[in-house]
Order: sequence, then C-alpha cells, then structure tokens
Amino acid sequence: MNQQPAYVELIQRFREFRLLESIGALVGWDQHTYMPPKGAGHRAEQMGYLAKTGHAMLTAPRIGELLGELEGLLAQKATDAIEAVNVREIRRTYDRAVKMPSRLVEEIAKTVSQAQNVWADSRKNSHFASFAPWLEKIVALKREEASAVGYKESPYDALLDEYEPGATAAQITRVFAELRADLIPLVAAVTASSKRPRKDILTREFAVDRQHIFGQAAAAAIGFDFQAGRLDTTVHPFCSGIGPGDCRLTTRYHPRELNQGLFGILHEAGHGIYEQGLDAELFGTPAGSFASLGIHESQSRLWENQVGRGLPFWRHFYPRLQQTYPGTLDDVELADFYFAINNVEKSFIRVEADEATYNMHIILRFELEQALMTGDLKPGDVPGAWNDKVKQMLDLTPPNDAQGCLQDIHWSMGGLGYFPTYTLGNLYAAQFMQQASSSLGGLDEDFQAGRFGRLKTWLNEKIHKPGQRYRPADLCLRVTNQPLSHRPLIAYLRKKYEPLYGI
Amino acid sequence: MNQQPAYVELIQRFREFRLLESIGALVGWDQHTYMPPKGAGHRAEQMGYLAKTGHAMLTAPRIGELLGELEGLLAQKATDAIEAVNVREIRRTYDRAVKMPSRLVEEIAKTVSQAQNVWADSRKNSHFASFAPWLEKIVALKREEASAVGYKESPYDALLDEYEPGATAAQITRVFAELRADLIPLVAAVTASSKRPRKDILTREFAVDRQHIFGQAAAAAIGFDFQAGRLDTTVHPFCSGIGPGDCRLTTRYHPRELNQGLFGILHEAGHGIYEQGLDAELFGTPAGSFASLGIHESQSRLWENQVGRGLPFWRHFYPRLQQTYPGTLDDVELADFYFAINNVEKSFIRVEADEATYNMHIILRFELEQALMTGDLKPGDVPGAWNDKVKQMLDLTPPNDAQGCLQDIHWSMGGLGYFPTYTLGNLYAAQFMQQASSSLGGLDEDFQAGRFGRLKTWLNEKIHKPGQRYRPADLCLRVTNQPLSHRPLIAYLRKKYEPLYGI
Repeated sequence: MNQQPAYVELIQRFREFRLLESIGALVGWDQHTYMPPKGAGHRAEQMGYLAKTGHAMLTAPRIGELLGELEGLLAQKATDAIEAVNVREIRRTYDRAVKMPSRLVEEIAKTVSQAQNVWADSRKNSHFASFAPWLEKIVALKREEASAVGYKESPYDALLDEYEPGATAAQITRVFAELRADLIPLVAAVTASSKRPRKDILTREFAVDRQHIFGQAAAAAIGFDFQAGRLDTTVHPFCSGIGPGDCRLTTRYHPRELNQGLFGILHEAGHGIYEQGLDAELFGTPAGSFASLGIHESQSRLWENQVGRGLPFWRHFYPRLQQTYPGTLDDVELADFYFAINNVEKSFIRVEADEATYNMHIILRFELEQALMTGDLKPGDVPGAWNDKVKQMLDLTPPNDAQGCLQDIHWSMGGLGYFPTYTLGNLYAAQFMQQASSSLGGLDEDFQAGRFGRLKTWLNEKIHKPGQRYRPADLCLRVTNQPLSHRPLIAYLRKKYEPLYGI
Repeated sequence: MNQQPAYVELIQRFREFRLLESIGALVGWDQHTYMPPKGAGHRAEQMGYLAKTGHAMLTAPRIGELLGELEGLLAQKATDAIEAVNVREIRRTYDRAVKMPSRLVEEIAKTVSQAQNVWADSRKNSHFASFAPWLEKIVALKREEASAVGYKESPYDALLDEYEPGATAAQITRVFAELRADLIPLVAAVTASSKRPRKDILTREFAVDRQHIFGQAAAAAIGFDFQAGRLDTTVHPFCSGIGPGDCRLTTRYHPRELNQGLFGILHEAGHGIYEQGLDAELFGTPAGSFASLGIHESQSRLWENQVGRGLPFWRHFYPRLQQTYPGTLDDVELADFYFAINNVEKSFIRVEADEATYNMHIILRFELEQALMTGDLKPGDVPGAWNDKVKQMLDLTPPNDAQGCLQDIHWSMGGLGYFPTYTLGNLYAAQFMQQASSSLGGLDEDFQAGRFGRLKTWLNEKIHKPGQRYRPADLCLRVTNQPLSHRPLIAYLRKKYEPLYGI
C-alpha cells in the first residue's frame, strides 16, 4: 500500500506540515532562550505566520480526499501496520483541525494571548476578580470548541482528546478515584510521622555554573545525547524536540536551591530521551511521533522520580555531587541526602509538591475543570471551590488566590484538559518501571554502578520506537500486560516512604 | 497611491515573503551558533523548505500583474516617494527571480552545496586540481545566470547587480584603477619605512571571557542596542538582522590575538547599527531594507576602521582595555598600542590584511572574476593568474594555493561579484566619514570622550533611514555631494600612515 500514490502524497503533505511546525518549534525555543527583549513584536509576527500557514497546510481539502481514498483500502491491513497507523492518526489530527471554525481558532488565539498577560498581573496582585471575565470567556470558547470537535459522553472528552488520544473523563475519574482513596491514608501516615528530613541540606550555597555542569553530566549519564541536543537556561523549563538529531532542553537554577535545577534537568532529559528515541526515519509522520502528553510525561517522571529520586541512583551520584561542591556536603550522609530529596509535605503550590501530594493537586484541578465544562461551576466561583477542595484534600487553606487558583498559567492559555496528563504520567511511569524491573532484573545494581543503558534501551524499544502505533491505553496494555492502574504508583510510593518515615 | 488595492496587496505579499526570509535568517543563525552537530540533516530540510517556499512566494505571477498595474500609475510620483521606491525595487527583485529558470536555481544550489565541501578539503590539502572541475562548473552556471538575468555591457554586471544594484564593472574598474594607482606608492612608502610597530603587543595572553565583555561594552558604546540584539560566538563571524528589534552579531576569539575578536566585534556592530537604524515601520519593504552590500560594508568598515582604529577612539578606550587585563599592557603606551593596531604589512591572506593592502587583495579578485566571466581566463589557469597578480601587486609569491587562490570560500558558494563590495565599502566609508566630519565638526573630541551618538544619529538619518530609496551611487551623491571617488580613502590612509611611518 505504501506504493499507492495517494499514500505517498498524503505523507509528503503531512511531513511538510510537520517540517513547518519544527521550524516553529525552533523559533519558539529561541523566543524563550536567546531572543533580545525588543524582538518580541517581530517574533509574534513570525509565529503568527507559521501558525496560519501550518493550519492551512493541515486543513487543505486535498488531505481529506486522500484520507477518504486510503481508508477504503485499509480494511485488509493490520491496525498497527505503519500505513494504517499513519492514516488513522492523520485522520484524527485533520478532523480536529477542520472541525474547528477558523473564526473560533482566531478568537481563542487572540483571547489567550491577552489573557496570559491579565493572568500574570492577577497572580502578582493576587486579584482573581480581574482574571474572572477572561476565565469566563475562555471557558465559553472551550465549550464551543468541544461542541465543534464533538464527543460521545462529556464535553471534557473533546478537550482531553487533543492531549491524550482516546482518553475519557470517565476512565480518568475511575483511576484517579482509586488513586486518591489510597493516597489519602498514605499521605496522612507520612505527615503524622515524627521522622522528618533535614531541610537545610538542599538550601545551602550551590554555585549555578556547577549545577549546570553536574546536571549536564547526569543527563548525559542517563542517556541524553548532547551531540543531538543541548541544555540552556530559561524562566519556565521545557523540552522541545526540533527534529531528528536536535532536541533542546531548558532549565532554571537557583543558587540556594539544589532541587529545582537538578530534578528539573532530569525531568526534561527524560522528555528528551523520548524525543531522541523516536524513529528518525519516520519523522513528521504519526508513526514517528510521541504517543501522547501523558506518555511523554511518563518518560520525564520516570527518570526524574522513579530513577532520579531513588537510592541506587544516588549511591552512584552522591559522592560526585559532594566533589562538585567541596566542603558543602561533608557533614551530610547519603541517607540524609536521600531523605531530604524525598521530603513529603502538604503545600499550596503544585510545581513545588512532592511525588505523593502532587497528584492531589492534579485531581482537584481535574474535578474543577470538568465542572467548568459542564457548567456546574461558574468561573466566578472558582476561588471558593478551589479552596474547599484544597481543604478537603490537603487540609490546608490557601492564604490568597496567588497561592490558590491563580498559581498556574494553564487556564489562561486555554489549556483545559492538560492537567490530568501530569498524573497520568506518574501512573504510567510507575507501571512501566514496575514492568521494566521485572523484565530486566538487577536495575538497582545497574543504577548504583552508574549504568542506565539497559533501562534506556528497553524504553526505546517498548515506548519510544512505536510512536503513535498504539493509543496510550493500548500501549500500556501491550507493554505491561495490564490496563492502567493506580496500584504500581501506590506500591512504589509505599515502598519508598514506609522505611523513610517509619510507617 | 498607497490607497490603491493593488499596492496594498503587493506590499502584503512582499512583506510576507520577507517575513519568511526572516524566519530563515533566524534558523540560519541558530545553525551557526547553537545547533547540535547531529541536527545538520534536519536543518538542511528546514532550510530547503524555506528556500523553496520563499522562491514560490516571490515569483508568484500575481506579483508581476500587480507591478504592471502599478507602474502605469507611477509616472506622476517623485521617484523617491516610498510607493515609487517599493514598486521599483520589488520589480528588480521579482524580475531577477523570475528570469532564473528553476532548473538553474536548483542546479546552482546543489552544485555550491557540494562545492563548498570540496573546496574545504582542497584548501586543507592545498590541492587546487580537486577543486578545479567544481570551479569550472560554477563559472559555467554563473555565465548561464548572467545570460538569463541579462545585462547591457558585461556579463559580470548581471552578477554585480544582485549585490550592488546599478553598479557596473566599467564604473568599478575606473574607480579601482585610480585607487590602485595611488595605493601602490603609498604602500611602497610605508613598507620601505624603518619605523615598525611592536607586534608582540597584540599577541599576549588575552582571556577570552574578558575579550567578550570588553567587546560587548565597546559595541554598546558606539551605539549597538543590546536590548534589540545579541553577540554570540561562531566560527565565521557575521551579522544577521532578523527583523525589527532583533539583530544578531557573532564573532570569534583567540586567546593570544586581540585583533580578531575586538575589531571583528566593531565590524559586525557596524553592520548591526545599520540594521537597527532601518525604518522598523517599513520592515519587509525595499524602503525599509539596506541599500546594498557595499553600503552595508561601508557601515561596518566605518566603525571598525575609520572610528575603531583611530587615535581618538583609543584615547577613550585604551585605559579601559588596560584595566580589563591587569598587568598585561602596563609597559605599553597608547602610542605604541595605536601603532600596533595600524601595522601595514604585505601578506597573502585577505582577511588578515591591513586597511591599505586589503584593497589590493580585492582588486586582484575583481580582475580575475571578470576574466572568468568573459572566458578570457580558464578556471584551470586560476592558480597561475592569481600568483602573477599577487607578484605584480604585492610583490609576493604565495607558497601554495591554500595561501593563494584557495583561501576564500566565496567562489565555492557561487558568490562571484561579491568581492568588489568589500572595497566599495571601504571607499564609501571614507567618503561618508569625510562628509560627517565636515558637517558635524568636533568628532575627534566626541570619540576621545567616549561619545559616538552624534555620528550614529547622522548615519541613521543620512544612510540608514533612507533604506533603498536611492541606489548606492545616488545615495553617495546625495549624502556627500560627490560621486564615489578613491580620494577620501587615499586621503584618510595618508593622514593616518604618514605620521606613523615618518613618510
């Protein structure tokens, strides 16, 4: 079938669209790293042109014709044959794009561009009222988007589908409920413990240039290829896969906070290792693209947490960290350091949360977003609803909205439906890692000897190379022989925290 | 007339083409600064896409229709009205693009891409024979290009026109001949002098990070706006104006060679000040674009040489340079330093040549290029012809072709017709500076007080803001009330060298 002229033309058109997107990715990376301040106006014009042109390429009626022609020929193909995968996933992307009226696309783009500035001010002044009308407008637009795109059960599903193909609010609600039921007693037991780590360890003087060197070495050690990527500094860390052989990581450093830079780098390197593990030959086609945001996040969380906050990892790296900062950590045993990087503490801010309480932050956002989409929650009532949930789940009361419902940028960007992918990432990471450990055996011994290649190769084969061959839920089932479950994450957290906190 | 729908559409189309080009400029900048090595393959695909798309946008038949419609309406407009300028110069660019058969465009692109690699090897091994067939192919293609584009007198004019609109080989031959006639005795007198500078001064230990800081401060002092630009490191220094508010300078440093980084930065900053001085409102139209490569080069040479190698400049900066390298220059008086940076010495390599002999290197290339284009010189005979001219003009014999006809990348890139713009830049720079000095008065006093604003403002008004309103020769006449002449450059060189060398 890949001799079919229709298939050849479809792939050529879609690859060209992705090539243009990859140019946009580079231009966007520059915007967040090296662009001089006064270049912002012209950069907006460049980005606007690329977005407009990309949309026109993707929604060209010819793509619809080619898809229609090819779908008739697909019946006899295995559903995971590359051609079938590409036609299926290009159809998904194409349909979503053509269903969106261009008036709506433009209105969303214009609204969120202004709303982000409003949000930044609102957060600074902790003044929800000024952001409220914008949130109202965004929710209305996202509801319109859901109607345009279509859904079976819940309008929220239409938003989810953009980030996590095939996922539904109902499925996520189920697994999140089970997770929550087990997390609450675990967190209660941990926080009730009298054993606490020494928090001063991570807030000593850690010169930023050495953080960069150490972080780069760690990223290289776990398998990020610096001949095919780089690490730069930015305000909001991200990973951007430009294309084959070119993946850009960014991070930020604080001279008196080791966590931020270090685990930030391991996190982004995890994303980067996924990007570098995609099939370069298939660049620009679904079969050569990442499966979903949740699967992407599973790779970052796996390296950051499952590996990077583990004792075997630090058996190897802790002496090296001590050498990097002569004198600074002489009085700190490995066990103390390990305890410090695994401090569990209820807090207001998602991005500062530990591995356990983090998921509570996500579950509350997921619940609020659904209520906003169904109309059960009015945007103006978000602060009260937020604070109720924080009280209920974390037994805390945010002192203000800046530390409550205004803390995240996502809603101002129109990113409703995005948050759940973070906890899906944690769940997938734990389930994949459980499988890798049992399939490969001896991973702890690998890590404490500084060897990460067997795990990386396993991830390359099982998760990265398949691209979008399987939807996330199917990929999980294929890789682990189990549907997605909360159990591996809970088991992992218990195994880590019970000895540390003497539970 | 700018109410004309045809004009509005023409400008909108041309600006979009330039916007795409500006994206290409950024992507190209990244390629030379931060791209990881393994990203080269994908980068070539991105660049190829941008080139192909840009060419299609520029040569759209609709642009020809719009131009035709508008040219009829232009008779009653002043030729330097913005609308008239834009239509005239878009016509020039459009005609050149559509006259080139796409087969020829592709063949040139493919040939020069391979030829550059061959050239790099040939130069490394100083083996002209391996480059000869490629030079032959390139010359044949450039002759074909000249035929396709058309010319009145000489095929060389067709090549010149791309870089220096309106310039002809005949005019350049005349002014170069006069320059040469005066340069030869001047260089002879200088090199016969027993007074020589201390060459060790510039080859001491100059830590690269401090070169960067000093160079950046100097570039900012002469007027390059670092809020609207940056300075990075690369192998082959360049300046790239991405668009309004965003201009990228690059340079290279050698820890035991002060000249290279320092004057390289002043040179690129001069280009950058031109880019930053263009009318941002008119971005993407000829009226908001630089006039020619020769005029561009005049701005870099003016700041690098006329200002940056002058005594008043160093009266201000030399104490600061000494402070930048404590102890390194304590034994060197300002006069000695000034003499060292104005060392005149016949040499083989163009890019290392001083202000006087540099032009001999250009004249010989200009003569050889013309002979290649007329067919009077066979590409295979270049080494002999080159060495004859070096003997004749500089009384030197290149020890090998690497230090002779293989030293420059330009021919392998198909850049025949480019070299003369370097000496045109020197000539324009001297003539503009002579005019600025007499119009403004007291510039030496400005410089030695570290003030460069009056000169910069004058250049902004006279040279930068007009964009392509006037062709280079007309711009020169307008700004200096004189046609281009060799006299200001010769007068400037004499005034500098006669006291230094006791002539």
